[in-house]
Amino acid sequence: MKHSVPDPFQNAVRGLSSLPGIGEKTAERLVFHILNQSRDARKRLAESILALNDGVRECSICHHISVADTCTICSDERRDESRVCVVELAQDVVKLENCIDYTGRYHVLGGRYAPLDGIFPEDLHLDSLVRRVKRGAVAEVILATSCTTEGEATSQLVQTRLQGLDIRISRLATGLPQGSEIQWAGPGALQDAFAYRREVLI
Amino acid sequence: MKHSVPDPFQNAVRGLSSLPGIGEKTAERLVFHILNQSRDARKRLAESILALNDGVRECSICHHISVADTCTICSDERRDESRVCVVELAQDVVKLENCIDYTGRYHVLGGRYAPLDGIFPEDLHLDSLVRRVKRGAVAEVILATSCTTEGEATSQLVQTRLQGLDIRISRLATGLPQGSEIQWAGPGALQDAFAYRREVLI
Repeated sequence: MKHSVPDPFQNAVRGLSSLPGIGEKTAERLVFHILNQSRDARKRLAESILALNDGVRECSICHHISVADTCTICSDERRDESRVCVVELAQDVVKLENCIDYTGRYHVLGGRYAPLDGIFPEDLHLDSLVRRVKRGAVAEVILATSCTTEGEATSQLVQTRLQGLDIRISRLATGLPQGSEIQWAGPGALQDAFAYRREVLI
Repeated sequence: MKHSVPDPFQNAVRGLSSLPGIGEKTAERLVFHILNQSRDARKRLAESILALNDGVRECSICHHISVADTCTICSDERRDESRVCVVELAQDVVKLENCIDYTGRYHVLGGRYAPLDGIFPEDLHLDSLVRRVKRGAVAEVILATSCTTEGEATSQLVQTRLQGLDIRISRLATGLPQGSEIQWAGPGALQDAFAYRREVLI
């Protein structure tokens, strides 16, 4: 960026461009937009960012983000507590809630097993998951970690920790994504699609 | 394109840009590249295009491209004739052969059921598939059409035609593609991944 712009402008651009997916050009555009807003609108935005840390904490049961001690999902009696869907991050819960009809509960690991990035088993919420399952209400654990190498390693880790407990463990299905054509599918997706082909009942 | 270029140049650009995935800009680049090649190289390229129609025809069994009456796959005794993988196009056979370890045979429908585009059941090689299956050597038909609406409709069509025959019918698995993260997965892929989740045996 040119040094002809005032420091506050540059600081705001630097702040916004530190966010994922926002490059310097986008940050500049955002800052110009904010500059043109009313002082009130700017204040509300700034305060909403400042207040983020205040009210939000981790659910004491599933580690999802929450304002109360337990999150809205864990404290919802209508959600089936016999099924626990294990995800890496809180945003995965939001994504799944938006996309699928799932009436069970969640468990947020807080990351994925990635020793090369310094994330080890003890950094993940594994103990609390084992305690939850041992308490006896859980019948199925659904492993909904990513389908990447690290996501699979994380799934394996959870499986190992749950070994010997009397529950069903399932893993999200892999295969061809809806809407894909054979021509443009990845080799891995095709291999899975073949290996796990489903019998059609007619 | 400018009208300052000679007609033969423009004709070649028009010819190449009629191919899928090649826009006018790319066609121009290709034509300039071809222009700089030797006359011999140009002749070989032109002749290979001309000769395309000559030798190549449809396999009389599976409708894959072939030079002989039956294609290399159908005439390969080592390929298991009890499994037939049904695909839309010949290029799907090439793609699958490159990506997966499959030792069965194929059946090329020659397109997908798309009434809006004027492709009806009678335009697909369905009768020859039914005849193949009725001959008795086929134990499993694997539906490997695309995971699009039209691909699914094509699969349904094949199922209907095979109804009542004593064979297993299977459909490629859908779900999350290998390498995908929950965050960036499509809603359809996530729904399938949940619905078809696989039990993990530990």
